[in-house]
Amino acid sequence: MEAPEFREFAKSMVDYIADYLENIRDRRVLSDVKPGYLRPLIPDSAPETPESWEDVMKDIERVIMPGVTHWHSPKFHAYFPTANSYPAIVADMLSGAIACIGFSWIASPACTELEVVMLDWLGKMIGLPKEFLACSGGKGGGVIQGTASEATLVALLGAKAKKIEEIKVLHPEWSENTIISKLVGYSSSQAHSSVERAGLLGGVKLRGVAADENNRLRGEALEAAIKKDLEDGLIPFYAVVTLGTTNTCAFDHLDECGPVGNKYGVWIHVDAAYAGAAFICPEYRPLLKGIETADSFNFNPHKWMLVNFDCSAMWLKDPSWVVNAFNVDPLYLKHDMQGSAPDYRHWQIPLGRRFRALKLWFVLRLYGVQNLQAHIRRHCGYATQFANLCRADERFEIVGDVNMGLVCFRLKGANEKSEKLLKHINGRGKIHMVPSKINDVYFLRMAVCSRFTRPEDMEYSWKEVSEAANDICNG
Amino acid sequence: MEAPEFREFAKSMVDYIADYLENIRDRRVLSDVKPGYLRPLIPDSAPETPESWEDVMKDIERVIMPGVTHWHSPKFHAYFPTANSYPAIVADMLSGAIACIGFSWIASPACTELEVVMLDWLGKMIGLPKEFLACSGGKGGGVIQGTASEATLVALLGAKAKKIEEIKVLHPEWSENTIISKLVGYSSSQAHSSVERAGLLGGVKLRGVAADENNRLRGEALEAAIKKDLEDGLIPFYAVVTLGTTNTCAFDHLDECGPVGNKYGVWIHVDAAYAGAAFICPEYRPLLKGIETADSFNFNPHKWMLVNFDCSAMWLKDPSWVVNAFNVDPLYLKHDMQGSAPDYRHWQIPLGRRFRALKLWFVLRLYGVQNLQAHIRRHCGYATQFANLCRADERFEIVGDVNMGLVCFRLKGANEKSEKLLKHINGRGKIHMVPSKINDVYFLRMAVCSRFTRPEDMEYSWKEVSEAANDICNG
Repeated sequence: MEAPEFREFAKSMVDYIADYLENIRDRRVLSDVKPGYLRPLIPDSAPETPESWEDVMKDIERVIMPGVTHWHSPKFHAYFPTANSYPAIVADMLSGAIACIGFSWIASPACTELEVVMLDWLGKMIGLPKEFLACSGGKGGGVIQGTASEATLVALLGAKAKKIEEIKVLHPEWSENTIISKLVGYSSSQAHSSVERAGLLGGVKLRGVAADENNRLRGEALEAAIKKDLEDGLIPFYAVVTLGTTNTCAFDHLDECGPVGNKYGVWIHVDAAYAGAAFICPEYRPLLKGIETADSFNFNPHKWMLVNFDCSAMWLKDPSWVVNAFNVDPLYLKHDMQGSAPDYRHWQIPLGRRFRALKLWFVLRLYGVQNLQAHIRRHCGYATQFANLCRADERFEIVGDVNMGLVCFRLKGANEKSEKLLKHINGRGKIHMVPSKINDVYFLRMAVCSRFTRPEDMEYSWKEVSEAANDICNG
Repeated sequence: MEAPEFREFAKSMVDYIADYLENIRDRRVLSDVKPGYLRPLIPDSAPETPESWEDVMKDIERVIMPGVTHWHSPKFHAYFPTANSYPAIVADMLSGAIACIGFSWIASPACTELEVVMLDWLGKMIGLPKEFLACSGGKGGGVIQGTASEATLVALLGAKAKKIEEIKVLHPEWSENTIISKLVGYSSSQAHSSVERAGLLGGVKLRGVAADENNRLRGEALEAAIKKDLEDGLIPFYAVVTLGTTNTCAFDHLDECGPVGNKYGVWIHVDAAYAGAAFICPEYRPLLKGIETADSFNFNPHKWMLVNFDCSAMWLKDPSWVVNAFNVDPLYLKHDMQGSAPDYRHWQIPLGRRFRALKLWFVLRLYGVQNLQAHIRRHCGYATQFANLCRADERFEIVGDVNMGLVCFRLKGANEKSEKLLKHINGRGKIHMVPSKINDVYFLRMAVCSRFTRPEDMEYSWKEVSEAANDICNG
């Protein structure tokens, strides 16, 4: 494909995208295809000679769209939001054109340097202490990871390397394997599944500590778990504090857990994957209290801050533990300027990385802080709107607090009723939600996800829930 | 930003991209900025209110381009190529608009199903045995990873899980930590740095086995290493066979190493990150001999097959070892169709994933197999052209064989001369290369990287090398 054709094709795609997103409300939100639907729709091998781009464009509606679950529809309330915005899409086009691999500074200085400065911009926006920012001139700084799962794993590996080095000094007679077998990390029992997975990947024990009745991890519970493990000869090294759990968007008490971590030499990693974006609004920043005790902090602009996936922002007070843990440095990756700017390949699991800072830059400049704050506040308002509709219907109950853009609710009574309700809702496919369960109480999660949502969309979603409840209760 | 503005902005970006790529040859390939160049060029915090997209566009040339190393210039010969094509850029635009997170089938069935079928298309194109393909109806199948580093790590973790389970049956009295401390994996001493890093991340020993005089791992050497470790009470579990090393694009003897792996119950992972794309040409497929002995195979269409980063294709004969090793399955990620299609979150390190199969689909259809083959053959031809120019100059010598699109060469005599030469070349910034070193012999690597390369570009690059040599030899 040559440039003139690309200009036509890409501009035709621009129009398709604008039409798709502006009319996304009209599509069935949850795909109703059956597994295996796609294979019969296309040939069983690649064509020998080129097809026309017009034919490829036609196949989007025929082959792809029937199998798409529309995450950006105002009728999508599953999981948590994933971001999508026009500035981010355009930035990604530029990133695809430059298509550098930013594993070292010299591989494209702009790729590294814009990332360093954007993470400073973003850190200031959410009120991070200056120890986390590169502009402070200290050790700290930020990096864009692909996902929060990777941030959790990277922090765990850094904490593991740090603790192994500490213990080796105290017990030179212990083998590394002996030390690793004694390491133990912590998170709330409400933490995301990726935390447990990080423990499996990192080959260390991770303990789920019971959260309180509000699904929040308390300092006392964390300290009790640490003390017990110390008595048993284990070595506490890492704790994940979640700000905004996936189940109910509960906030662990960072101001209690952080000091406990510091007291026992336990690395505190703060996972604010979804809710962290809210800290750009000063009124939510009290939930960040205690952040000065953390060693690493992570949130996903690709969830709730309009920067397309993948853009998971992570800050470390002292990146050297991560950088040195896995520093493998062949000659073909060395360069003369090493040390004067970060070589981000040492900060992450993969070697390669795209020019992801561009989309952060475009979104921050083309929205401005105020519009991003307005976006957060609008979503929180919609959750309140939905919760009020729910509270006004005596068949329903809200589960826990309504935090950020998430409402957890259920039909009063046995779990089976709510399970039947959700099955009915998703079967109709007019709106889409997923369930969760805490202490054997099953509930539905209504997450506000779309940037296109309007108050009447929330009314529509509630009406759909209410009608499904009618069907269930009468059926 | 609303849709009408997006249409203007994005179309303006389309034109910028076409202009940038069509004229990329005219830019200085290696950025000559100094570390810290970017920070003073932009404000120190995000704007409160939106800027105009025209202002953002203007800043691309002012802020970004001075710090870009142009990977797609015909004058770029560093590392290995990374892919960039018009069809892939357009596909990524669509992926950014749909912006689903394909962690499970239901999260967007098209995202999973297109990936399954595209990996079948691609597997057929390179002649993989049917045991690796989902269309065979067996266990096997493919997945798109972010990078080859992740594929190496995922395979290692699968191999580790498999071997631990085997040993637990034989030695129920051994703890998991005891078993892990005995595990040992292998790769050629010429393997990529990410293999060593996978060992560090996975917490197991990895041994570099000396390659032969042609930098290729032989079956005999692998078997000797395995036997020695068995005698020492260790447990061999994993071997990486590299097809196309980073240093010299050498090919390990898969047909020798594979049977050794099978004989000793050692998982064979084939890393063909760069060179694997060449297997779409039947004449290169003899280098794939022995592939039926492998457990997993990986190559990067995002390197040499015109699919933009990230698209690292991986096939597993039996994915269950990977899937079950880290299967953490909370209620909010479960769905009714589980088991009838892959839930790719279990096949990879992160949880989230973009709709990456789209760019594979677009590239395969809009180029067609024949044009992709022509691209590979052209690059190999350019390498031969450069090598011949080099051979005709008696000051130079070629290091090893000329494989695929890579030429390794040096000034005859002491390393210092070639080191000085490369420094001089990169200092002039007209072309860009990186060095490597084997057995204390330092050499320059000339990789053919750009899809815009023409024969006269190779003449230009050679002329630049030759003139730099004049400067060095006379200076």
